[in-house]
Amino acid sequence: MNSENTHKFDYQAMLDWAIACLQSAGASAEVARTTAYYLLEGDMLGYRTHGLVRLYDNMRWLRDGKSRTEGEVTVVSDRPAIACWDAGFLPGPYVMPKAIQVAIDKAKQCGTGTMLLRRSQHVASLAAYLSLATEQQLLISVMASSPGQRAVTAHGGKQAVFSPNPFAIGVPTSSQALIFDISLSMTAAGKVRQAKANGQRLPYAALVTADGEWSDDPHTFFAENASAIAPLGGAQLGYKGYGLTLFSEIWSMALSLHGRQAGADDGDANSVWIQVIDPAAIGDYAAFQAVTDELLQAALNSAAIDPPVRLPGQQSHAHKQRQLRHGVEFSDAILRVLQRCADDRQLPLPAER
Amino acid sequence: MNSENTHKFDYQAMLDWAIACLQSAGASAEVARTTAYYLLEGDMLGYRTHGLVRLYDNMRWLRDGKSRTEGEVTVVSDRPAIACWDAGFLPGPYVMPKAIQVAIDKAKQCGTGTMLLRRSQHVASLAAYLSLATEQQLLISVMASSPGQRAVTAHGGKQAVFSPNPFAIGVPTSSQALIFDISLSMTAAGKVRQAKANGQRLPYAALVTADGEWSDDPHTFFAENASAIAPLGGAQLGYKGYGLTLFSEIWSMALSLHGRQAGADDGDANSVWIQVIDPAAIGDYAAFQAVTDELLQAALNSAAIDPPVRLPGQQSHAHKQRQLRHGVEFSDAILRVLQRCADDRQLPLPAER
Repeated sequence: MNSENTHKFDYQAMLDWAIACLQSAGASAEVARTTAYYLLEGDMLGYRTHGLVRLYDNMRWLRDGKSRTEGEVTVVSDRPAIACWDAGFLPGPYVMPKAIQVAIDKAKQCGTGTMLLRRSQHVASLAAYLSLATEQQLLISVMASSPGQRAVTAHGGKQAVFSPNPFAIGVPTSSQALIFDISLSMTAAGKVRQAKANGQRLPYAALVTADGEWSDDPHTFFAENASAIAPLGGAQLGYKGYGLTLFSEIWSMALSLHGRQAGADDGDANSVWIQVIDPAAIGDYAAFQAVTDELLQAALNSAAIDPPVRLPGQQSHAHKQRQLRHGVEFSDAILRVLQRCADDRQLPLPAER
Repeated sequence: MNSENTHKFDYQAMLDWAIACLQSAGASAEVARTTAYYLLEGDMLGYRTHGLVRLYDNMRWLRDGKSRTEGEVTVVSDRPAIACWDAGFLPGPYVMPKAIQVAIDKAKQCGTGTMLLRRSQHVASLAAYLSLATEQQLLISVMASSPGQRAVTAHGGKQAVFSPNPFAIGVPTSSQALIFDISLSMTAAGKVRQAKANGQRLPYAALVTADGEWSDDPHTFFAENASAIAPLGGAQLGYKGYGLTLFSEIWSMALSLHGRQAGADDGDANSVWIQVIDPAAIGDYAAFQAVTDELLQAALNSAAIDPPVRLPGQQSHAHKQRQLRHGVEFSDAILRVLQRCADDRQLPLPAER
């Protein structure tokens, strides 16, 4: 958090406050509970750009009618191993756990279970949902895209075509679950916003300007002839990130039959691909776990440049344990957003610890 | 092909010759036909490091008993949407089309169909198999790993832990299918071999030496204290390629219940994840195609640095059309391998065109 101060709050007090804010903005009790919980879970796991910093937007969407305050999804189709829902702009953190539960049920029945969502309001941090599957000894992969957003170029392009799509997997192990959640581009839009807000350059040239130059200046991303984020791999290997981005756009948007033309006015809403796999459908769960543990141990034990090799999610688990014990941490910048929510709803923030 | 000569052969004559070589090495007619066809298809699509250059190895494995010359797979498990086979070292190009056909049948029944293979002898180019699904208006994704090989580091590591795992997708469109086939590391082992054979450096520093230095020298990869390939993303974003590599290793190896300890002596044999998806299970196929076409057109039409943006697979289709018309092309280096096969089997190569 750089030279900023860190503000600590009791986890339960912060959760209760966020629920109250969302209810005050019109959300049903259940919508408020799930939205507050999964936003805060993003902070707990260290995904600060996709945590409670999004609370103000979520409240605004509820008040403006861009998020539904309650209601049901529309089932577009339902087959034994796959189903598609139109969420009709229900909040993402309310729809995602329901969709994952159906994917879990399908996986237990068929071996794999796949759910497609269209018009889910913004789902925030994919990492926050993975434990729903991993705690039941199931594997999960999730991809999301935003039909109404363009921020990422094709490889060799200098014009935004795609959204900065997250890709996440969760894998149960004999100890902590493996949690992996990345954007398939050189950086995420939230990180560009964060760098601009902090008056910093990006740590590397992740942007391509309208003139076709590579840049690490976040201001170019918000300029009139805006720069765009390059796909993972950069100037030399960007064809890999480009193909992976097409993978995420086709699997989430084309399979849910709702593309960038139909979704041009969807704002921040997401199309989502969710797949759960039951290793017990293939054989003995212990045999699956033994191979997974062996693969992860080999990585952990391998000779490292400096510092030692870590597992994906290892830091997230440490963030969560620390914050459960010592309080949820927010930077000055995020606290300003939370204070704005408090002022807006006339619901004072909990006391700092 | 640099300053090398290009040698052209009639497609059918080259296929017949490769089939004869494999039969002479002990393969059944069907094993020989499929192995020759899919190796040659790698060349047709431009995947030269995974084409007929592998014919000599395939013949050697058949003669040495490392590949079975005929026979059946063992079904490990079979559920409605997923099955796992132990291929018992049947040649990959013989097993892969059979497995994809089962995945297709499952997808048509359940919406998705997943196949796991363990102990498939080397599958060569994943791209070569994708049209089996795309020609039936189905999507396909494939990942492979090699339990007996270590060539890729963890992020921050300087020791080989993983294999250089390919990831491929095929998507039907209203014109040519999208074909995407990459390694999830900074480069593939075949490309390092090729650079060394051609006396060239790699185009960028893709290797980490035992001293923890980045290198573009292919000789370090074959030295005593060998360098290893870094995961996609390099020094700054390698945690992304590291997680994607773990994804491919867990989805292919752990789910097929056969890891690096059990497979330590598997040589080049692969563990494979195959998944086929039927868009018609979700809704109108035309609606799926419309969104896919729209996404691809947006990329094609976007402003480019120079030259224009291409689609994954666009070059592969052009390679195949050209070679069908004017003959299959081989470099001097690959021709030397083919001549070695011809000498070994006393089966003269077809005449050059």
